[in-house]
Amino acid sequence: MRQNHVLRAWRNGGQTIGGWLSINSSFSAEIMAHAGFDWLCVDMQHGLADFADCVTMLQAISTTDTVPFVRVPWNEPSIIMRVLDAGAYGVIVPLVSNREEAERAVAAVRYPPVGQRSSGPARAAMYGGPNYQAWANDEIALIVMIETAEALEKLDEILAVPGIDAAYIGPSDLAYALGLPPTGDNNDPKHVETVNRILEACKRHGVAPGAHTNSVEFTTRFLKQGFQLVMLGQDTNFMRRLASTELQAARASAGVAPLKPGA
Amino acid sequence: MRQNHVLRAWRNGGQTIGGWLSINSSFSAEIMAHAGFDWLCVDMQHGLADFADCVTMLQAISTTDTVPFVRVPWNEPSIIMRVLDAGAYGVIVPLVSNREEAERAVAAVRYPPVGQRSSGPARAAMYGGPNYQAWANDEIALIVMIETAEALEKLDEILAVPGIDAAYIGPSDLAYALGLPPTGDNNDPKHVETVNRILEACKRHGVAPGAHTNSVEFTTRFLKQGFQLVMLGQDTNFMRRLASTELQAARASAGVAPLKPGA
Amino acid sequence: MRQNHVLRAWRNGGQTIGGWLSINSSFSAEIMAHAGFDWLCVDMQHGLADFADCVTMLQAISTTDTVPFVRVPWNEPSIIMRVLDAGAYGVIVPLVSNREEAERAVAAVRYPPVGQRSSGPARAAMYGGPNYQAWANDEIALIVMIETAEALEKLDEILAVPGIDAAYIGPSDLAYALGLPPTGDNNDPKHVETVNRILEACKRHGVAPGAHTNSVEFTTRFLKQGFQLVMLGQDTNFMRRLASTELQAARASAGVAPLKPGA
Amino acid sequence: MRQNHVLRAWRNGGQTIGGWLSINSSFSAEIMAHAGFDWLCVDMQHGLADFADCVTMLQAISTTDTVPFVRVPWNEPSIIMRVLDAGAYGVIVPLVSNREEAERAVAAVRYPPVGQRSSGPARAAMYGGPNYQAWANDEIALIVMIETAEALEKLDEILAVPGIDAAYIGPSDLAYALGLPPTGDNNDPKHVETVNRILEACKRHGVAPGAHTNSVEFTTRFLKQGFQLVMLGQDTNFMRRLASTELQAARASAGVAPLKPGA
Amino acid sequence: MRQNHVLRAWRNGGQTIGGWLSINSSFSAEIMAHAGFDWLCVDMQHGLADFADCVTMLQAISTTDTVPFVRVPWNEPSIIMRVLDAGAYGVIVPLVSNREEAERAVAAVRYPPVGQRSSGPARAAMYGGPNYQAWANDEIALIVMIETAEALEKLDEILAVPGIDAAYIGPSDLAYALGLPPTGDNNDPKHVETVNRILEACKRHGVAPGAHTNSVEFTTRFLKQGFQLVMLGQDTNFMRRLASTELQAARASAGVAPLKPGA
Amino acid sequence: MRQNHVLRAWRNGGQTIGGWLSINSSFSAEIMAHAGFDWLCVDMQHGLADFADCVTMLQAISTTDTVPFVRVPWNEPSIIMRVLDAGAYGVIVPLVSNREEAERAVAAVRYPPVGQRSSGPARAAMYGGPNYQAWANDEIALIVMIETAEALEKLDEILAVPGIDAAYIGPSDLAYALGLPPTGDNNDPKHVETVNRILEACKRHGVAPGAHTNSVEFTTRFLKQGFQLVMLGQDTNFMRRLASTELQAARASAGVAPLKPGA
Repeated sequence: MRQNHVLRAWRNGGQTIGGWLSINSSFSAEIMAHAGFDWLCVDMQHGLADFADCVTMLQAISTTDTVPFVRVPWNEPSIIMRVLDAGAYGVIVPLVSNREEAERAVAAVRYPPVGQRSSGPARAAMYGGPNYQAWANDEIALIVMIETAEALEKLDEILAVPGIDAAYIGPSDLAYALGLPPTGDNNDPKHVETVNRILEACKRHGVAPGAHTNSVEFTTRFLKQGFQLVMLGQDTNFMRRLASTELQAARASAGVAPLKPGA
Repeated sequence: MRQNHVLRAWRNGGQTIGGWLSINSSFSAEIMAHAGFDWLCVDMQHGLADFADCVTMLQAISTTDTVPFVRVPWNEPSIIMRVLDAGAYGVIVPLVSNREEAERAVAAVRYPPVGQRSSGPARAAMYGGPNYQAWANDEIALIVMIETAEALEKLDEILAVPGIDAAYIGPSDLAYALGLPPTGDNNDPKHVETVNRILEACKRHGVAPGAHTNSVEFTTRFLKQGFQLVMLGQDTNFMRRLASTELQAARASAGVAPLKPGA
Repeated sequence: MRQNHVLRAWRNGGQTIGGWLSINSSFSAEIMAHAGFDWLCVDMQHGLADFADCVTMLQAISTTDTVPFVRVPWNEPSIIMRVLDAGAYGVIVPLVSNREEAERAVAAVRYPPVGQRSSGPARAAMYGGPNYQAWANDEIALIVMIETAEALEKLDEILAVPGIDAAYIGPSDLAYALGLPPTGDNNDPKHVETVNRILEACKRHGVAPGAHTNSVEFTTRFLKQGFQLVMLGQDTNFMRRLASTELQAARASAGVAPLKPGA
Repeated sequence: MRQNHVLRAWRNGGQTIGGWLSINSSFSAEIMAHAGFDWLCVDMQHGLADFADCVTMLQAISTTDTVPFVRVPWNEPSIIMRVLDAGAYGVIVPLVSNREEAERAVAAVRYPPVGQRSSGPARAAMYGGPNYQAWANDEIALIVMIETAEALEKLDEILAVPGIDAAYIGPSDLAYALGLPPTGDNNDPKHVETVNRILEACKRHGVAPGAHTNSVEFTTRFLKQGFQLVMLGQDTNFMRRLASTELQAARASAGVAPLKPGA
Repeated sequence: MRQNHVLRAWRNGGQTIGGWLSINSSFSAEIMAHAGFDWLCVDMQHGLADFADCVTMLQAISTTDTVPFVRVPWNEPSIIMRVLDAGAYGVIVPLVSNREEAERAVAAVRYPPVGQRSSGPARAAMYGGPNYQAWANDEIALIVMIETAEALEKLDEILAVPGIDAAYIGPSDLAYALGLPPTGDNNDPKHVETVNRILEACKRHGVAPGAHTNSVEFTTRFLKQGFQLVMLGQDTNFMRRLASTELQAARASAGVAPLKPGA
Repeated sequence: MRQNHVLRAWRNGGQTIGGWLSINSSFSAEIMAHAGFDWLCVDMQHGLADFADCVTMLQAISTTDTVPFVRVPWNEPSIIMRVLDAGAYGVIVPLVSNREEAERAVAAVRYPPVGQRSSGPARAAMYGGPNYQAWANDEIALIVMIETAEALEKLDEILAVPGIDAAYIGPSDLAYALGLPPTGDNNDPKHVETVNRILEACKRHGVAPGAHTNSVEFTTRFLKQGFQLVMLGQDTNFMRRLASTELQAARASAGVAPLKPGA
C-alpha cells in the first residue's frame, strides 16, 4: 500500500507546500515533480489539462514521491471518480458552498458505505498497490475550496461534513465573494480577516487549512499562521516571471531593445 | 508578405534575443511568445516536441509577432522541409561540420534554383502570405550550428557557403569538441577563445553570429561582443529554476521541511 | 485590450457571417480562419473537437483577426468557463429553453457581480490582453440557441435575461420541435414562420438575431431579413460537397467509373 | 487476403481517381473516404500528418473500401517500412531521381528475397489478412515520383527497376526542374511536353502512369491521355475553395462586407 | 443502412459475447475488434479513454463487423449524445437507479418525438448510412446498468421504461450495494440470488439481460442462464494476466529470478 | 545516480527477461511495467509508438523499477539520441550488418570522447540523476540486432566493436536472411544452428547474448542455453492470444456462436 504521506502529515499537524500545474504536458509535470514540492496539483478547472493530459501528468508525477492531486473542473461525481481511477491521491473540488455540495463531493470520493464512488480503479490500483479499494477511503485526500459568499456563511456546516480532509482558499474568487477586485495575494483587510476566519473554522473542525498563493511572501505568511497546505506557485507563473525578468535584465544591461515589426 | 524582421535586423547589423522551447505544449509556447523575445526556437533535437507538437507550437507563436524558429533533430532534408512547410521562419541545423553539410542544409532550405526544397508550403503559405514561394528564399533564416571539432577546422569553408544567414554556437557540444566537460555557460579560456574565433569568422563572412546561453550574464556578454542572435534561456530552465529558488526560500523562511516518504 | 469587433458590430446594428468547425484539427481551423469569415465557431456539441483540440483550434484562429466562438456541448458552467479561460470570445449555448437556463448561461459567462464565472483566465488573458477580468463581461459574446418547443413558448422570458447578446436558431432541432423532419435549410411554412417570429422577438429585446444555415441561399435570405449573425457553412460540408461534385464531374467527363472491390 | 483492387486495376489497364489528405485528422480522412475516390493518400511530405496521425487516418480509411496510400516524407527505408506496417497499401516516394534511388525504394517496400523490408506488420496483418507476408509483395503498390531534372534524364533506368508499379508526376517540383514557376496545373508547353514524355516512358516500361492535379480539368485531361492514377484534389483545397467561393457569393448577394477590426 | 445485428439478435432471443476496452489506443481497439467478439465497449467511466480517444477507437472497431458500444462516464445527455454522434451503436449508462434516471437516458439516446437527442450525427451518419436520423431510434442500443441499492428496489419501474433495450449488471458496484466486498465474479449467495432476480425481471419486461464478468467460467454460467449480453473480459486484463502467467512460468522453468534493484 | 541494474547484471553474467511494447499507450505500458519484467522495450520500428508516445511510455515505465529500452526504427543518430534524451536506458538498434554500422550506433549512443552523442539530456537527466553526462556512457545499454545475412558473415567484426553491450537476435528477419519463411519461434535446424553460432560469438566477445521470442518454451530454451536477455512476449500478443483463447472457450462451453452480420 502506498501511503499518502501528505494526508498523514496533515493528520499529525504537519505542514506541506505544493505546486500547481496549468501546462498540459507530462514533461513539464515531471520537471515540477523534481522541484521538491510535497504535492502537485493538476488543474483541470482553470489549467489547460484535459483528462487525457491529466493521466500522463499523473504518471509523470508518479515517477517521484511527490503526491499527485487534481483540481477537478466542477463538483461532479463523473470527473471526480475518473481522476481518482487515474491515480490522483487527492482531489480539490472548487466552489463548495454548503453542506449538500460538500456531501456530494464526499460521496464521489469515498467508496461505500461512506460514499458512492463506483468500483474500477484502473490505474489507481497500480499506483496505490494491492487491495486499493479496501484502504482508499483512508488515503485519498478530499480538499474542498472555500471561495464563495455562500460558503462563508455556511463554513461550519461544510467543514463538519465527515470525509473532508482539508479546506482550500481560492483567493481571487474569494475576493469576488467579498466584492473586491479578483486579486490573488491579497492584503485588503476584509480579505485578510476572512482568511483568518476560515483558518479558525478549520482548526475548530479538525480540517487541514489550505490556501493558494503566488509568492514566497504569502506562502511564508500562511505557513506561519498555521496553514497546512499552501500552494507556492504555478508552472506557468514561474516560467513567465523569470523569462520576463531576465529578458528585461538582459535587454537593459546589453542595451538591446525589442525589434519592432513593421517599423 | 510577412517579413522576417529578425533576419532583416541581422542584415542591418541589428541584435536580437531569443528563447528556447523544450516543453511539448502549444500553451507554454504561447506564454513564452508573450514574454517579449524577438524569436523563439522549438527544439526538436534535445527538446520534447515531436512534429505534431511543433505544428501547434508554431501556431501558438504565430499569434504574436515573435519570429518562430525550429531546431531540427538532424541535418536531414526531410525534417527541414517539413518544419518549413509548417511555417517555421528559421531553421537551426545542428552539428554542421563542413562545406558539404552546409550545402546540404542550404539545399533543403532554399527553393530552386538555389536549393532543392520541394514545393508544398501547406501552412507556411498561410502564415507567410501570398506568393510565398516567390520570396521565401529571402525571408527564411538558415542558421547552422558550429559545435564540432571538424567545424572549428573548417569554419571558413562552412561560413562561405551562400545561403547561410547565421552561425550559432552550441556551447556544451563545443566543450566536448575542445575536450572540456560539457558545460553551457563556459569560462574556460579555451572555450572563450574559440567563441571569439567563431565570432570573428562570422564577421569576416558577413554571417550573423549567434550563441546559446543559460544566463543574463552570458547573454549580456555575448551581445556586448557583437553577437546578433543570443539565446537567453529555455522554458524548462526558467520554470525549474524559479520554482526551486522560491520553494527553498519559502521552506527556509517558514521553517517547513520537505516531507520524507516512509519516514 | 482586444475588442470583440463582432460583438461591437451587433451592438451597432451590423451584420456578420460566420463559419463552423467540426474537424478536430488546428490546421483545418487555421485554413478556415484565412477564408474571410467574421467569426468561426468550434463545435464541441456535434463536432469532433474535444477540449484539448479546442485549445489548439482557438490558438489557430487567433493567428488571424477572425473572432473565435465555441459551441459548448451543454449548458454546464464547467465547460463554459473552461472554453472562456482558453480564449473563446463568444460562447454558443445549445438548447436554452427558459429563463432559468438562460440565467444559468449568463452566470457561467459573466464574472461577478453579474455572474459567477470563476477567476482564472489562463489563456484568455494572453489573447485578450491586460486587465482581462476588468472588461471581459463587456467583450465576451453570449449566444443562446433557440431550438426547443419550450423555448418557443418562453421566447420573451429568455431574451429578456440581461447578459445575453444574441439568439441563434438551430434549424434541425427547431424542426424537431415543430414536429417536422430534421432538415437544416428549411422552407416548410411552419418553420419559416417560426424563424420570423424569433427574429421579431430578438428585435423587440435588443438581442442580435442569428441562424445556422448550410447554403448561400439561406445565408443571403437571412441576412436580407436582418439577421446579424448567420452561419454560412461547415468545414466538413465544404470539403465533402466540393470533393463529391468534382469527383462526379471528373468521372463523367473522363468516363472513369469507380472501382468495384471484389468485382 | 485483402486484394489491392487499385493495383490490380492498373495491371489490367484500368484507370483510377484518387484524393489527397493534408489535414491531420482521422475524422476528415473518413469523410474523404466516403466521397468515392478509388484511393486516398495521406501526405506525410507536405501535409500535416505525423506518424501517429497517419495510423488513425489509415484506420479511418479502412472503414471503407477506398485503398489507403501514404506519401512518405523522404525515400528512407525507416518511414516507408513504418507506414507499411501501419497498413498502407501503397507508398508514394517523392523525388526519385535515378536507378539507385528507385532500387532503394523497392528494397524498403518488398520483403526478401525481392527487397529488405523487415518483418513485423503490426497493423498491416490485421488489415490485409492472414499470411500477409506471403503475398504482400504482390499487393502493395510502390509509386515513385518523377519530378526532378535528374529523373527526366534517367527516366528509363528508373522505370526499368523491377518492383515499381507506378510513376507519379509532381507538377510543381517538375516545373522547378524545368526552370518554370512552381505552378500545379500547368499549361506551359515545356511542362506539357514533359508530362507526355513521362507518360510514354511509363507505357514503354509497363508502369502505370500517374499525375497530381488540382482540378477537374486536368484530371479529365490526364485520364483521357491514359494516365491510370490521377489525383483530383486535396481535403484542404476542397474546403478552402468552396468556403471562399460561397462566402464571397453570400457577401455579394446580401451586401454584407467583412468587418474591419480596429476600424 | 447499417443494421445493429447485436440489437436485432437480442430482439430475436439471441445471445452475444462482448469485450471491454480500457486502454486508450485505437490500435489495441482494432486488435480486440479482430478477436471475434460480437460487440466491444469503449469504457469512458473507469477506462482511460477520453472523448478524442473514443472517436479513433470507434473508427478502429468500425474497420470490422464488431458492433461498437460506449460506456459513458455518467448519465448525462451531453456525453451520451456526443458518443452517439461519434458513431457508437450502443450506449451503456452506469448507475441507473430509478425511472427518472432511466427516462433521462432514453431522452438522451432517442431522437424526437421519443426523446430529445439533438440533431447532428457528424460521424454516425457516415458509419450508419443514409437517413441515419430516420431509423437511428430503432438501431441504437440503450443499455442501463443495474448496480445500486435503489435500482434493486425499483427494478420494475426502470425496466418498464420504453426505449431501454438491455440491462447490464455491474457486479462490483452491485456487491457494494449488497454490503459485500467489491468482487467482480461473485459467488456470494446474496449476489447470486440478486443476479438471478435481475435476470427474471429482464425476462418479465422483455429487456435483454446482461452482465459483466472476468472469466470464461462466469461468462459460460451467465450464458447458460439465458443472459443475452455477457462481457467476457477486458483488454487490460487479458494482457496483464497472460503476461504474468507466462513470465512466472518462464522464470520457474528457467530458474531465472527477477532482478532486485539496489541489491 | 540511477544504476542500470539490467546492464550490471549482464556484466556479472546474470540473465534477464524482458517484455515488448507495441501499443501506443502509456497506460498499457504502465500495466506491463507492473508485470514483473526486468526490462521493457518500446518498439518504434514495428510497433505503433511515435516519439511523442514513446516519451509518455518511458515515463510510465519509470514509475517502476523496470528498466526502459527503446528499439529505434533505424540506425540513425537522430532518433537514437532523441530516445536517450527522453530517458531510455537502453537502445536496441535493428539490422546492424557490419563494423561501420555498429560503430555508427556506438557513436550515437556514447558521449565524447567515446562517441558523438550531442549534449542535452532533457528528460534523461531527471530520470538518471545528477551528473548524468558524466556516467551515462557506463549505464546506458547498447544492443545491436543480428538479423541480416551480412551480419552473419561479419559477426566477429560487429561484436568486437567497443561500446556494444549486447547482441539481440530478431528471429523473423534472421529467417529471411537464411532463406526461410519469416517465422518467429523457429525450429528449423538452419535457424537453430545460426542462433547457436551467434550465442557462441557473443560469449567469445564478452557481449551479452539476447533473443526475441513469442513463447515460454523458447524463452526457457534460450535462457537455459545461456542467453542473458530474452524477450518473452509483446503486449499485443498477450492480449490477442488470451482474448481469442477465452472467447473460443466461452463460445464452446456455452454453445454461443458468433453473430453473422447480414445473415
